[in-house]
Amino acid sequence: MDKEQIFQYLAESWNKNMPFNQLLGFEITRFDDKQAEISFRWDDKLIGNPIQKILHGGVTAAVLDVAGGVVAAANVIANLDEITPESVQENIRKLGTIDLRTDFLRPGRGEHFVATAHIIRSGSKVAVARMELHNENGDHIAFGTGTYMVG
Amino acid sequence: MDKEQIFQYLAESWNKNMPFNQLLGFEITRFDDKQAEISFRWDDKLIGNPIQKILHGGVTAAVLDVAGGVVAAANVIANLDEITPESVQENIRKLGTIDLRTDFLRPGRGEHFVATAHIIRSGSKVAVARMELHNENGDHIAFGTGTYMVG
Amino acid sequence: MDKEQIFQYLAESWNKNMPFNQLLGFEITRFDDKQAEISFRWDDKLIGNPIQKILHGGVTAAVLDVAGGVVAAANVIANLDEITPESVQENIRKLGTIDLRTDFLRPGRGEHFVATAHIIRSGSKVAVARMELHNENGDHIAFGTGTYMVG
Amino acid sequence: MDKEQIFQYLAESWNKNMPFNQLLGFEITRFDDKQAEISFRWDDKLIGNPIQKILHGGVTAAVLDVAGGVVAAANVIANLDEITPESVQENIRKLGTIDLRTDFLRPGRGEHFVATAHIIRSGSKVAVARMELHNENGDHIAFGTGTYMVG
Repeated sequence: MDKEQIFQYLAESWNKNMPFNQLLGFEITRFDDKQAEISFRWDDKLIGNPIQKILHGGVTAAVLDVAGGVVAAANVIANLDEITPESVQENIRKLGTIDLRTDFLRPGRGEHFVATAHIIRSGSKVAVARMELHNENGDHIAFGTGTYMVG
Repeated sequence: MDKEQIFQYLAESWNKNMPFNQLLGFEITRFDDKQAEISFRWDDKLIGNPIQKILHGGVTAAVLDVAGGVVAAANVIANLDEITPESVQENIRKLGTIDLRTDFLRPGRGEHFVATAHIIRSGSKVAVARMELHNENGDHIAFGTGTYMVG
Repeated sequence: MDKEQIFQYLAESWNKNMPFNQLLGFEITRFDDKQAEISFRWDDKLIGNPIQKILHGGVTAAVLDVAGGVVAAANVIANLDEITPESVQENIRKLGTIDLRTDFLRPGRGEHFVATAHIIRSGSKVAVARMELHNENGDHIAFGTGTYMVG
Repeated sequence: MDKEQIFQYLAESWNKNMPFNQLLGFEITRFDDKQAEISFRWDDKLIGNPIQKILHGGVTAAVLDVAGGVVAAANVIANLDEITPESVQENIRKLGTIDLRTDFLRPGRGEHFVATAHIIRSGSKVAVARMELHNENGDHIAFGTGTYMVG
């Protein structure tokens, strides 16, 4: 398997097998070693404030954490000496979020949302990613910064 | 209505009317101007990592954000010159999270979880809260710090 | 006085009158409502770790905080209905950092450093800025995110 | 050398050999595996805002970073299988701040300041510390959370 096949396999597997991501409707729509992208559609169950009809802050934090985690995983895979299903699985298993900062910039309104993430620090033990959340009009809803354990 | 009645009324109202909190099973179980407490039970839909069976990081961030927001609301109400349903509603409406830091300390395992929050900075425009998440064994799962717009 | 004159006057005044910025050699080298830039040169007194000869983390945090504060001040001034020395002074006086996140990406090595800041959330009470620190080779040393009280 | 001797030796060595800490007057006044404490006295050169005569935010961030780094170092040493000058030096050399959040709670006024730090996450690769800054009256000036590379 080459790197792109691994990315595609993992995206399909994670999209099917992550209960909370499925509950919220999150889908990995881009996954390579440069950038990760998670998409989801508005759903009334994601409402935090029923008067203003905006996304719950926890939905925003969750999607930013997922986007950062996916790009951190891609970064781990891209740095492997040898890419095999076993080496990928072993290295991905260690991955976890250490800390996450979310900056809420605008009310979470829209029909279709996309969270993007890219790596700003790539190490053998720790990776740091920056994330953004936009709606279908390009409104910038939130920023995030996440530190991930990767080794 | 005195302050305690307002707190009780808001807790009941929020427990019934916040779609995302209901989806995740969050319940306000303490709400006064010193501390807020949000409780929830393990549910398989809250799983992030299906191999390790631990809470999704977004669940942790969400419950810490809610706990911080509730204690920030209590702080707003406690500082009102006159407590009426109108003054409470008007002041609560302005409340929103500006930023949130989540520190993930231990895997989110357990049957019953409690998030607590207390105010560390109380101002007329901005409040800052610190939050913690524990399970039924007292394991300390996460810390949070949130900055809230309150005026 | 127009806006550009105010920015120039404030930059000169702050460069002369801020003791800690002078101690560290920080100089405001750009100041408008889009971006702020703070420059400083290597000096042995800024060393944190004497074995590695790199900047102290506190120098990095300090220059990012200054850059964010300056662009927040510019943002306050740009949003004033009427720009007079009095209105500027009154509004600038309220400015203060609420919280600051610093992400250390690479060792702080170099001869000449530039911190840049731009606004990501502009409000009447709170502004949020993102900052970066680079050396003369374009190495990206640190990222920052700061939340500022502005009203 | 036992652990306490190592702590004392390191405290003396760092108090003498860290240029930026000396410039700011920071002194390690407690250093064990439970807690670190850094003390410093007011000095006009530490002023950020000359009108309000308060500490520069960078001084606050710097002292919190130092306190967190010292307790992270203590934690590394306490977890060593064998404590020798060589094992200590090798393990301490890897230590570095990954990210730091500073929450500014009150204006930095006072004559004598103490920053304290304790570990909230202790791992073989990453440690997380929480820090506080108080003045001689017990006023709580700032909180901090730092993530440190330790292995």
